[in-house]
Amino acid sequence: MEAIKSFDQLRTQLKNSGERVRVAVVWAHDGHTPEAVRRAVSDGFATAIFVGHREETLAAVNLTAEMEHLSFVNADSPEEASAAAVALVREGKADVIMKGLVNTDVLLRAVLNKQTGILPYLDEEKTKRAVLTHIAVVDIPRLKRLLFITDAAVIPNPTVEQRAAQIRYASHLCHCFGIEQPRIAMLHCTEKTSEKFPITLDYAALKERAEAGEFGDILLDGPLDLLCSLSPEGLADKHLESKLEGKADVLMFSDIEMGNGVYKSFTLFADALIAGMLFGPQCPVVLTSRGDSIDAKFCSLCAAIAVSKR
Amino acid sequence: MEAIKSFDQLRTQLKNSGERVRVAVVWAHDGHTPEAVRRAVSDGFATAIFVGHREETLAAVNLTAEMEHLSFVNADSPEEASAAAVALVREGKADVIMKGLVNTDVLLRAVLNKQTGILPYLDEEKTKRAVLTHIAVVDIPRLKRLLFITDAAVIPNPTVEQRAAQIRYASHLCHCFGIEQPRIAMLHCTEKTSEKFPITLDYAALKERAEAGEFGDILLDGPLDLLCSLSPEGLADKHLESKLEGKADVLMFSDIEMGNGVYKSFTLFADALIAGMLFGPQCPVVLTSRGDSIDAKFCSLCAAIAVSKR
Repeated sequence: MEAIKSFDQLRTQLKNSGERVRVAVVWAHDGHTPEAVRRAVSDGFATAIFVGHREETLAAVNLTAEMEHLSFVNADSPEEASAAAVALVREGKADVIMKGLVNTDVLLRAVLNKQTGILPYLDEEKTKRAVLTHIAVVDIPRLKRLLFITDAAVIPNPTVEQRAAQIRYASHLCHCFGIEQPRIAMLHCTEKTSEKFPITLDYAALKERAEAGEFGDILLDGPLDLLCSLSPEGLADKHLESKLEGKADVLMFSDIEMGNGVYKSFTLFADALIAGMLFGPQCPVVLTSRGDSIDAKFCSLCAAIAVSKR
Repeated sequence: MEAIKSFDQLRTQLKNSGERVRVAVVWAHDGHTPEAVRRAVSDGFATAIFVGHREETLAAVNLTAEMEHLSFVNADSPEEASAAAVALVREGKADVIMKGLVNTDVLLRAVLNKQTGILPYLDEEKTKRAVLTHIAVVDIPRLKRLLFITDAAVIPNPTVEQRAAQIRYASHLCHCFGIEQPRIAMLHCTEKTSEKFPITLDYAALKERAEAGEFGDILLDGPLDLLCSLSPEGLADKHLESKLEGKADVLMFSDIEMGNGVYKSFTLFADALIAGMLFGPQCPVVLTSRGDSIDAKFCSLCAAIAVSKR
């Protein structure tokens, strides 16, 4: 499989696959969400289950109930819709969850519910659960390839084990996009490892674990700043060497502040289309924002569908 | 005075002023620094004092010793050159310091030296010194105005008092650029004030002090994310209001990680020209990087000269 380098390529590949993935759409009572879903349905790679008021959803866009590959599950509130969508995944009836006009907190509560949720336990005693984190796929036209960034939205200051999970999730995501040996940059404001910044010691420990083979076939380096991660020239200017060669696929941020700042500057100044989703739950959960365009919501759905197919 | 909206405008204004500012250039043995300085000298707004090896500096570019408004102070090492440049400022013989091919640490040691340095004491007992911080002036073509950002390089996690100093310095800098009522955004990954993120409580305290008039005629708001700081549309999409109206002049970063990440993404993806300098010392200290272009170094020098003239 060739690496997918843009959302356009991703769409084409999903269209050509001829397979549909079942998407549970939670409370799609806004204009953009059902329109984005409709596009995936008519492109032939999604089946939609709208969980919410049937009439309000139908009113939200020009959906006609006759359209094939659409179904409805009734729910009277965003809370009920969230729980119902999660239940569909548990029952094996949905492969992806997509957020509509519901607060992230409400959807997260349903996902995380200890009895009825979909964040797996890692041990039989049920004391330890999978790490929940946010990864976004970024299409920046001038970069001519996709970037995968984590975490701009959920974990403020990741621990070493949360970072290890981010490495595993991001590698898996890269594989879904045809990148066989993901290049993962652990970001920081300098390239120095020092006790003054404890995360740089965490980075050193993770590099050792990567070299011992724990994360499979990846290239992991850090601390690196954004320039040294993404620009071969930036790396050369600083007279530094990195096994990533300034061509990182994945950016692991030092903290949520850096993540959010870089994410927003991609949106504002790099003409980026960004597809965000949650990793950790049994299935990808598409988290879009109220202000996202139909294009952004559609790309987010495409990315989640690509992940769910592997 | 009309607000200056680009480095081109700044250059024109400095040229038209007909006044020269005295610049002590530390160890300018690379190609780019003396060339940037030469440009300011021939534009008529700088007098250069090169502190270093006279012959090596002359060799570094096509400087001819006959050129007016150039002088040389001999020094045998970067350490000696740094100390000599700082001494020139103390003696009232230089108005700006510019870093050449010397490590930032070395120059900083000379600036910060308790006996011979130029970071003022704030009390007679000499127990408290002025806050040393980094502010950069950013020219992003598509923004059509200048941004002032702090701190992407020096203070990892500013305290409230360090932030108060950043507000004062940034306001002064804005005034130097003709912005009468600076709009200052205190950045964070969300717009919520909560104990979960202690800096948001600091922001609330600073807003109260601003409203009490401590910082003069400024508009201060936060926590705001980058989008809500710089985009009226981004603010409207989130159904939020801010007295900055999505038109911030100054971005105060939550931490050095966010600062550095946003700074580098401006460089990589927004075609930004960025001029960085230190605030706190008796005079502006131009801190450029090894990899900076002649243009970037020239703009940095112009910005520092603009500050030193007020």
